[in-house]
Amino acid sequence: MVNNTVQLGKNVEIGENVVIEDNVSIGDNVVIGHNVVIKRDTVIGNGVQIGDLTQLGKSPSSNKKMARKPERNLTPLVIEDDVTIGCNSVIYRNVQLKKGVFVGDLTSIREKVTIGEDSIVGRNVMVETNTQVGKKVTIQTGCYITADMVIEDDVFIGPCCSSSNDKYMGMGNFEHQGPIIKKSAKIGNNATLLPAVTIGENAIIGAGAVITKDVPAGKTVVGNPGRVIK
Amino acid sequence: MVNNTVQLGKNVEIGENVVIEDNVSIGDNVVIGHNVVIKRDTVIGNGVQIGDLTQLGKSPSSNKKMARKPERNLTPLVIEDDVTIGCNSVIYRNVQLKKGVFVGDLTSIREKVTIGEDSIVGRNVMVETNTQVGKKVTIQTGCYITADMVIEDDVFIGPCCSSSNDKYMGMGNFEHQGPIIKKSAKIGNNATLLPAVTIGENAIIGAGAVITKDVPAGKTVVGNPGRVIK
Amino acid sequence: MVNNTVQLGKNVEIGENVVIEDNVSIGDNVVIGHNVVIKRDTVIGNGVQIGDLTQLGKSPSSNKKMARKPERNLTPLVIEDDVTIGCNSVIYRNVQLKKGVFVGDLTSIREKVTIGEDSIVGRNVMVETNTQVGKKVTIQTGCYITADMVIEDDVFIGPCCSSSNDKYMGMGNFEHQGPIIKKSAKIGNNATLLPAVTIGENAIIGAGAVITKDVPAGKTVVGNPGRVIK
Repeated sequence: MVNNTVQLGKNVEIGENVVIEDNVSIGDNVVIGHNVVIKRDTVIGNGVQIGDLTQLGKSPSSNKKMARKPERNLTPLVIEDDVTIGCNSVIYRNVQLKKGVFVGDLTSIREKVTIGEDSIVGRNVMVETNTQVGKKVTIQTGCYITADMVIEDDVFIGPCCSSSNDKYMGMGNFEHQGPIIKKSAKIGNNATLLPAVTIGENAIIGAGAVITKDVPAGKTVVGNPGRVIK
Repeated sequence: MVNNTVQLGKNVEIGENVVIEDNVSIGDNVVIGHNVVIKRDTVIGNGVQIGDLTQLGKSPSSNKKMARKPERNLTPLVIEDDVTIGCNSVIYRNVQLKKGVFVGDLTSIREKVTIGEDSIVGRNVMVETNTQVGKKVTIQTGCYITADMVIEDDVFIGPCCSSSNDKYMGMGNFEHQGPIIKKSAKIGNNATLLPAVTIGENAIIGAGAVITKDVPAGKTVVGNPGRVIK
Repeated sequence: MVNNTVQLGKNVEIGENVVIEDNVSIGDNVVIGHNVVIKRDTVIGNGVQIGDLTQLGKSPSSNKKMARKPERNLTPLVIEDDVTIGCNSVIYRNVQLKKGVFVGDLTSIREKVTIGEDSIVGRNVMVETNTQVGKKVTIQTGCYITADMVIEDDVFIGPCCSSSNDKYMGMGNFEHQGPIIKKSAKIGNNATLLPAVTIGENAIIGAGAVITKDVPAGKTVVGNPGRVIK
């Protein structure tokens, strides 16, 4: 299963029933679980841990109806040193997981995404394409991170938050733009963020709030629709 | 792993560690990923692509407390031509995926469900039993599609929408009925639909709205509880 | 794949590509699906059924930023008689699934959790650490059950409910406490429960409600923020 196009570091543990496709590179002291699939070209740094039954380096696919066709010739998935990835997760090509990132179980990250150093992406989180996540960000379990979104450093996103990037829901007359969450903002669980809203630095969004317009820095917003309370 | 009860078309690529149970039929030009499990009787058309670590053709199970016991002797899972299915997904017996359907990663579809031609079922979507989805429907990532629901052609459902089918939450005095979403309606992200509501043709439901009663055709509804705004 | 540290009961069916690590114990009449991974020390009772592509007995991991470091030397995962577990699920060490429990597909349960007799944990449910679930509880598909939560007997939780346990969202000045849901309470779909709220016995929470304070026994609460309606 490991052919001679694969570069293997020192002290690598590989589980049973693992498939490693061509041209994969694996650093030192890496642990790869059982029944893992690593697609061609994936680059894995030192000290990385991969849970069982996870797939790394997927190429995006589509059907006739999909407006946004996946790009061809994407660069490989790059997993930097000391990253930990859970079980039953699916991570695409052209993703960069920076040093020390943690990705939970049953999570999927699409292409054209960077997750910054030491950030946490919890269990069952879905990250869409073309989104940038800063350093030391926490994205808790069950969040949906839409495409074309920016999440700055030190942001905290509680469980099950949802976001979107298309004001006209598929009718095609809006340039796709996800929310922009500025440094150190905090989002409560199950909050809903509409397309293109900006959440200011250190702003706080209450649990279950629906954010339909920009939130100024340092303000707290709750309710549906969200209103500033202090 | 492929015994002589399996019918294999021309030009079929089968990954490593794949399990194909008895009486499966696979068309021409099919690609099956690594570590895939295909349960007995499954029917796969031409040009179908199956992601790694996916299970196809599951028989439902239950426990003592479950009100709705799964039916026996369900017909097989039928996957028509040019369907694409992601990684780590679970699709039950007695599902029909019509021509050109796209199913994302980490998605599960229960028995007695039809997904119409060219429709999209995104990543991490859960579809319950006895639900009918029309043609060219988009169900975005993270949606929960309850049982006994009807989704007509050209409907768009944004990410993380939730629905339910049991007004009395397990107390047993309501005939189960999910929402009915009429042709070309659009549902915003993280909206909540109560049992048995009808969303009229071309109606628009705002992100985060809670829909407690029927929405007339062409109307826009937002808020909690949802109210018509135009 | 099954070495001599594994204790195997009578009439055990083991699928293909299954990995069973050291010191696992398996009772009589157990069915283990294909491509399953069972980690060391796991204890499986009689009549248990495990779906394909599931991982049992995971040890928690973490990264530098995580406030709550996983404990070492956790006791094994214990699965009692007649438990059914779905496909592509991930269940940690130090979990107890009591007799007759049902766990759906694509579900994950963290360490230090007990699920009581005959309870149902639906598909794609995420249960966090240090949470206790009583007997005959129903947790429907897509729910997020936070850490440090108590769910008493006969509770019904509709699909996609969300909860949290940290009032200050990672700022560290609140003792973590999830919601407490008392006996026979019912929670509607996509409801949001804030940290440390108590839902009284037989209380009813409407679909999409946001619960910011305690709900008295027998009362019905709807809206955002939730208010008592009867």
